[in-house]
Amino acid sequence: MRGQPPATVTELAGRTGLSRPGTDVVVRGLVTDGWVKVVEPDGSTVGRPARRYRFNADAGHVFGVDIGAHKILVLLSNLEGEVLRSRRMPVDPDADPAERLAVLDAAITDCLTEAGLEPDQIWAITVGVTGPVDASGRTSLFTPLPGWASVSPADHLAARFGCPISVENDCKLAAVAERWQGAAQDADDIVYLQAGMRIGAGLIIDGTLRRGFGGAAGEIGALKTLRWLSAPSRLENCPGMPADVHPDDKAAWVFERAREGDRDALTTLRRYVKDLAVGTAALVLTLDPQVVVLGGGYSRSADLIIDPLVDELERLCLRVPEVRASSLGADSVALGALRIALDQIDAQLFADGMPAPLKT
Amino acid sequence: MRGQPPATVTELAGRTGLSRPGTDVVVRGLVTDGWVKVVEPDGSTVGRPARRYRFNADAGHVFGVDIGAHKILVLLSNLEGEVLRSRRMPVDPDADPAERLAVLDAAITDCLTEAGLEPDQIWAITVGVTGPVDASGRTSLFTPLPGWASVSPADHLAARFGCPISVENDCKLAAVAERWQGAAQDADDIVYLQAGMRIGAGLIIDGTLRRGFGGAAGEIGALKTLRWLSAPSRLENCPGMPADVHPDDKAAWVFERAREGDRDALTTLRRYVKDLAVGTAALVLTLDPQVVVLGGGYSRSADLIIDPLVDELERLCLRVPEVRASSLGADSVALGALRIALDQIDAQLFADGMPAPLKT
Repeated sequence: MRGQPPATVTELAGRTGLSRPGTDVVVRGLVTDGWVKVVEPDGSTVGRPARRYRFNADAGHVFGVDIGAHKILVLLSNLEGEVLRSRRMPVDPDADPAERLAVLDAAITDCLTEAGLEPDQIWAITVGVTGPVDASGRTSLFTPLPGWASVSPADHLAARFGCPISVENDCKLAAVAERWQGAAQDADDIVYLQAGMRIGAGLIIDGTLRRGFGGAAGEIGALKTLRWLSAPSRLENCPGMPADVHPDDKAAWVFERAREGDRDALTTLRRYVKDLAVGTAALVLTLDPQVVVLGGGYSRSADLIIDPLVDELERLCLRVPEVRASSLGADSVALGALRIALDQIDAQLFADGMPAPLKT
Repeated sequence: MRGQPPATVTELAGRTGLSRPGTDVVVRGLVTDGWVKVVEPDGSTVGRPARRYRFNADAGHVFGVDIGAHKILVLLSNLEGEVLRSRRMPVDPDADPAERLAVLDAAITDCLTEAGLEPDQIWAITVGVTGPVDASGRTSLFTPLPGWASVSPADHLAARFGCPISVENDCKLAAVAERWQGAAQDADDIVYLQAGMRIGAGLIIDGTLRRGFGGAAGEIGALKTLRWLSAPSRLENCPGMPADVHPDDKAAWVFERAREGDRDALTTLRRYVKDLAVGTAALVLTLDPQVVVLGGGYSRSADLIIDPLVDELERLCLRVPEVRASSLGADSVALGALRIALDQIDAQLFADGMPAPLKT
């Protein structure tokens, strides 16, 4: 019934292949348990209208969280993945773990309060962080956040929430989001590129997010010869850049000048794309995906990047996939986190069963 | 019953959870159809011994074929994957497609004749070739074999065999073989390296061979900056190499001198491994596998390669997987082809059903 419009018992019986009386018994049970809501006839139909039933998407809720260097974004959704509340809060990139976690807690509290929910009405939480996530849910191998290598966001949130809490790499979550609601809904083999002040990747192969044996799949940027480490500095060092441009705005400055036809900016952009293409070619040659999705902060200028990127891939690869711009932008990490949290509920529901909502 | 010792009806009933009479009916049906053979009691048991039944592994047969530059290897197995006949025939690396296919036909004929089988007793054939295999079963993007880009081995064999015939990249098949019977039987995430006069890779992720959207997964060697294209020439150009060493024997000459402690050979070997490591690091960083298997012709000297390769990976990667030597050697491609042919039969059997052996 989830994801479907309200249906009568007769319609549900047809859909499931069960008898009408059998379906009626099951549906009444689901109503008693809180999984299903009754939709009373509105009187607009001629004759004796049948009562209809719909999945109770508000029986439970999940959080999808993006912990970034500059901001924290918290999305609260129901069981259909419908976003009910969102809260974006700035963080100082130099904030220590305690400050960053305090901002996270505040954003979560705001969402709960606005939605009128208690912590025990949250059924799953997924948190996105930068860097490969190890088996303990920490980014012990690498993180750009100060002091964050030993932080366990799951342990921190477990003090307040009793539900399953998972932690995942931001690029991996963004890849999931693009397949769920974004630019790659039709594809099963996807390389997601996060192009911003750092470059990262998330990989979906045969429809499944691939984490790797130790959670470090997609971390090709670590290989210097593939030039992802140095690529963003191309933009930061564009000739003619005024000294007072804030580091966070340097790339935007270059994209803007390039759009105006400035030669230095165009040359800089071309060099950036050449660097971006080398690591991308390594991923494409390894995985031979159907689609490459260009996401991350710089994907706002995807129109300037995609054509030259495809040209470079034509030169470097055996078979060039379609390259598309992200359609989710800055929300993709938190959206992917929502999807993983919802998947966790499904896995639990269909594997072990779950207590009925009205009995919790 | 496949892969199991002969069993009584009582034992089979216990294993399946069916009733004893029900199991008896099913087993008798399988005997009538030719799937199962009766094993008569040998009289060694005390009391009234029960008749036992075993899977009739010889009900059908498959071919696994490796079409290489220098040789063709054909393996014939029964439905348990037991190799009944094998035939290895040399081919001139410069042979044109007609000559190469004639050698293939001769090797297949030899196997059939020796085993006393007719072509219609072959249920599936898989052929391994070098280069990425496109949707039409050709290596149109790249092949080192002269004139081979437009050749369809499946179409050629279809003139003689009515069974399903598939064509697959040699490195991918070798990867499958190493997981089936070789050095990576315990792993689900495997990067297989074929290190020889060319370097290639086959990828198994979450237990499944990954082909990529267009069949070109693992072709990372095409990216020059990753140095797989040039690596083998390091060995060929070792200082001190006598002019009369045959090109095919140059690497062996270097490995031999290195083993004797020759400094030029050791330096050459170190440079080769450094080049091999760059492309390997790109695969490892992309996929984060559990195991890297070193196969191909040079894996006979794996003891000289693996330690320095691991040292380089430690330097280049975030997490270094276990690196193991292939345990199958030169048979791995044909063995992997057997496994894929057997998998095809299973897929057909469990999806669409198949005619009973005694009715074909």
